[in-house]
Amino acid sequence: MPKIEINPGIAPFPKPIVLVGAMVNNRPNFNTIAWFNRLNGRPNIWGVAMGKKKYTLEGIRQSRKFSINFPTVDIVDRVDFCGIYSGREVDKSETFDVFFGELGDVPMVKECPVTAECSVYEIVELPSTSLLLGEVKHAYVDEHIITDGTPDLRKINPFVFVRPGDQYWALGKSVGNAWSIGKTLKE
Amino acid sequence: MPKIEINPGIAPFPKPIVLVGAMVNNRPNFNTIAWFNRLNGRPNIWGVAMGKKKYTLEGIRQSRKFSINFPTVDIVDRVDFCGIYSGREVDKSETFDVFFGELGDVPMVKECPVTAECSVYEIVELPSTSLLLGEVKHAYVDEHIITDGTPDLRKINPFVFVRPGDQYWALGKSVGNAWSIGKTLKE
Repeated sequence: MPKIEINPGIAPFPKPIVLVGAMVNNRPNFNTIAWFNRLNGRPNIWGVAMGKKKYTLEGIRQSRKFSINFPTVDIVDRVDFCGIYSGREVDKSETFDVFFGELGDVPMVKECPVTAECSVYEIVELPSTSLLLGEVKHAYVDEHIITDGTPDLRKINPFVFVRPGDQYWALGKSVGNAWSIGKTLKE
Repeated sequence: MPKIEINPGIAPFPKPIVLVGAMVNNRPNFNTIAWFNRLNGRPNIWGVAMGKKKYTLEGIRQSRKFSINFPTVDIVDRVDFCGIYSGREVDKSETFDVFFGELGDVPMVKECPVTAECSVYEIVELPSTSLLLGEVKHAYVDEHIITDGTPDLRKINPFVFVRPGDQYWALGKSVGNAWSIGKTLKE
């Protein structure tokens, strides 16, 4: 198969989708983000890359805390809504049932079966985004999605963001056990 | 639904899987990473969080360049293999068909329909990982997965990493068009 070179501005892989929550001007606000992942194990640090002018980021810079909410397919339309419109133009404080946890004024989404409160560990300024590193302080779950004390993706119905085409996709089936199927290749 | 608080050491979301490639001690080496995402649009910067003692990272610190290779379900066993064993204990230089591009000594995986060469933009040191920020310099694809000049995930067969359970999952079906289904919620 001959390889061809193309424009390097691509990002051709499935991305997790989260709702980033914060109080902004005394109101809960949520922004949909696909540039997210875990970046450190202990402590548990998650990274979120956000456009520098995001309304949600304004609140996070002040409070130094935010929430991460993992949505399911049931609320995909509201998740998309929070990615299209800025909190500067629409009031998202009633888009979801909001609850608060240990850190106090960090809004979380009740409809999400797993949510977490984070404190800002560091903000790394990149050319067009601010890379928010958050240390996970508290995590909250719906009891029915727990297996052996931890959230079970097999009981959740998550989705990922896929481009081009710009679609949300549900997950399919297992194609192998990690830390396992590769072992047969070692002589 | 009452929420319960659990141990905050979780990361309950599907993660993209990539092979990070570099020359280490004059041999191609590849490491499987799930803590990966795009972090900036222009320039196109991707972030990879790697354990500080990873063998691949040793090579990248010297050469200041690396590859990102997006695997398909066909090679999931070899991808798992590269996540289980360190290049210190096994020679991975013949695990894949290797090719090289414009940057020269940056090994890429021919079996991956999309690969890219990156130069190190910055390395952010976190408590247990090094967060490698790489600027995408060149991207290479198999022609048959291209639609309108860009790699098309609908023609690729990617997978994500899911824990707990530690499995690789294929993707499912579309559950909605992004930047679209949320519009109906705006009055």
